[in-house]
Amino acid sequence: MTEVHVAGVGLTHFGRHPERTGRDLFGEAVQRAVTDAGVPRDDIDHLNYGNFMGALAERQAHQAPLMAEAGGLQCPATRYEEACASAGVAVREAVKSIRSGERDVMLAGGMERMTNMGTAGATEGLAIAADELHEVHAGITFPGAYALMASAYFDQYGGSRADLANVAVKNHANALGNEYAQYQREITVAEAMDSPPVADPLHLFDACPITDGAAGLVLVSGEYADEHAVDAPVTITGTGQGGDKMALQDREYLAQTPAARDAADEAYAEAGVKPQDVDVAEVHDCFTIAEVLALEALGFYEVGEGIGAARRGETTRDGDRPVNLSGGLKAKGHPVGATGASQIAELTRLLRGDHPNSDAVPDAEVGLAHNAGGTVASAVVHVLEVAR
Amino acid sequence: MTEVHVAGVGLTHFGRHPERTGRDLFGEAVQRAVTDAGVPRDDIDHLNYGNFMGALAERQAHQAPLMAEAGGLQCPATRYEEACASAGVAVREAVKSIRSGERDVMLAGGMERMTNMGTAGATEGLAIAADELHEVHAGITFPGAYALMASAYFDQYGGSRADLANVAVKNHANALGNEYAQYQREITVAEAMDSPPVADPLHLFDACPITDGAAGLVLVSGEYADEHAVDAPVTITGTGQGGDKMALQDREYLAQTPAARDAADEAYAEAGVKPQDVDVAEVHDCFTIAEVLALEALGFYEVGEGIGAARRGETTRDGDRPVNLSGGLKAKGHPVGATGASQIAELTRLLRGDHPNSDAVPDAEVGLAHNAGGTVASAVVHVLEVAR
Repeated sequence: MTEVHVAGVGLTHFGRHPERTGRDLFGEAVQRAVTDAGVPRDDIDHLNYGNFMGALAERQAHQAPLMAEAGGLQCPATRYEEACASAGVAVREAVKSIRSGERDVMLAGGMERMTNMGTAGATEGLAIAADELHEVHAGITFPGAYALMASAYFDQYGGSRADLANVAVKNHANALGNEYAQYQREITVAEAMDSPPVADPLHLFDACPITDGAAGLVLVSGEYADEHAVDAPVTITGTGQGGDKMALQDREYLAQTPAARDAADEAYAEAGVKPQDVDVAEVHDCFTIAEVLALEALGFYEVGEGIGAARRGETTRDGDRPVNLSGGLKAKGHPVGATGASQIAELTRLLRGDHPNSDAVPDAEVGLAHNAGGTVASAVVHVLEVAR
Repeated sequence: MTEVHVAGVGLTHFGRHPERTGRDLFGEAVQRAVTDAGVPRDDIDHLNYGNFMGALAERQAHQAPLMAEAGGLQCPATRYEEACASAGVAVREAVKSIRSGERDVMLAGGMERMTNMGTAGATEGLAIAADELHEVHAGITFPGAYALMASAYFDQYGGSRADLANVAVKNHANALGNEYAQYQREITVAEAMDSPPVADPLHLFDACPITDGAAGLVLVSGEYADEHAVDAPVTITGTGQGGDKMALQDREYLAQTPAARDAADEAYAEAGVKPQDVDVAEVHDCFTIAEVLALEALGFYEVGEGIGAARRGETTRDGDRPVNLSGGLKAKGHPVGATGASQIAELTRLLRGDHPNSDAVPDAEVGLAHNAGGTVASAVVHVLEVAR
């Protein structure tokens, strides 16, 4: 089976870009990815593109050919939509395409514009990732849904708002040196605790922001890398996907995310690694509780044990296994359709040693990206490795 | 390379279904496809699902896991969106997945609800498949865009409104016996000519209707078919995809669709067949002119020669190569996200001999499906074969 290498990564700044179109943002990400890869643009066989709610944000669907054009790509293009895991599935199917020999060089990425919708508009827009008939119709939005999950967690396993605040503080600290991050500033536990309530027990600083941004990856086969002497030390060795019932009410557990566990199990098996082999991870912390649930689903902690990880310093940059060194969705930002690719871009830089936070993981060999859709009704996990 | 067989097909009635949800429609299509295939539902590895504008029509994105649930599938699911070619790309990537050995049994299909938006609402919704900044912003909708293409065709190559009316008459005649078709009634050339103008030179009867509906296919590998003695005589032997500039203004020719030509060339090469080998075709006749452009892009006619095909009786059910025996988008209906899979379902039945119009092509060995997005900024072509 062909190996899949990350030959190049490209990110835009994540934040408010009211003056820029989606095609402008994605074009920049492609330009940077192609430059980073040093691969001729014309060698790209196909674009796998993730976008979630362009139909609402820009009245623009059918974005795949448009984004190929914006990126100067002369190849067919396909859009993937899996809520907040849109870019995750775009990358996953690209990995499978290259592995199988169907394609040699691919651009996988995504883009989202959200800030032009305003916070209330974006929150309403995001709600289309939940079950319209049985959740949204009853008044639920994502802050409310994750608040239910957090409440259930506290009830079943314990933990406190302060534990969650430590997750936010950690991720803000990590974003400090990341030029692409939306929030490059530190916060304190007290600030997080005192931030306005959104949906009990979650407060404002438990939530990721509304973000515009784009991300792109150039992925190449091992054969292509060899033939063209492409410098691409990072390999995607595992990919996994899981699914779950869409509505929270239909699930057995509110405070567990089996779709992510299934995705991780598949990715670990493919890569031949175990949870304890993972040196550094980017996980889908759309809310602080989501990071906790991810740590447990990924097998880093037993169920009920992940809540204290940030507080105990185990997932901080000086901890044994740093999580969200990019700043995570919480502080780097969460342009929905770009996030899954952005996580892999950040991990690639961390493993290559050219990320501002690479010094926290100088010996890291195995990285993991965890990207989730909705209340983890879908999840995608990738394992990345670098030879040292 | 593994062969890909169509083991089962499932369609809902295409038409107005105001009382039914999208999940209800897709669940029915899956049920029928699984029953037709005789394959245990639990053997399905993955759902590839096409949908175009659920964000507008039902305020529901993230439909893939929801539709897996509606279909009783215990597998991960991925949504594809490529405007009116959404199901086409969903099927195409499923074919590639099975071929490569990554997956053995897949459900590929799609669904669209549109009639609840009303004709004006749906027309505005459909416009998100065009370039929002440079086309829609200037007031163009798809009837207008295809009218420009028809005008350019008439200017460059000749032809008349009566030629286009013959396409509509042919496709309505074909839909007569199709229980799934939205319009099961004949029309005359005079009726088509006298129908109200929409965008000169296109009149109402040149346009496909607004439709609710769903389609599903069970696709299996040759190995799986052999091991489980699945009766699946139809094989997908070629798949191709092409892309073009999104906006008409950026293209070299208004009256040609090179994305479809590229897709066809790729599919023909894979299947090892030539245009003249195709016995029966389903093409994307969202407007009558679109069928003409398709016939030429597929190599059935030279550029400028396809316009008279229906009038001359070459593409009618008694002609040498019947086109749109299902009734086509024009008369069978066009639930956008389902259409690409519906075409392959119809072709499969035609080739297996269990379609009401199978008697028109009793010896057919090679079928072709042509599915297009927008003004053919994207196109997907599949070649199907049956051994006789």
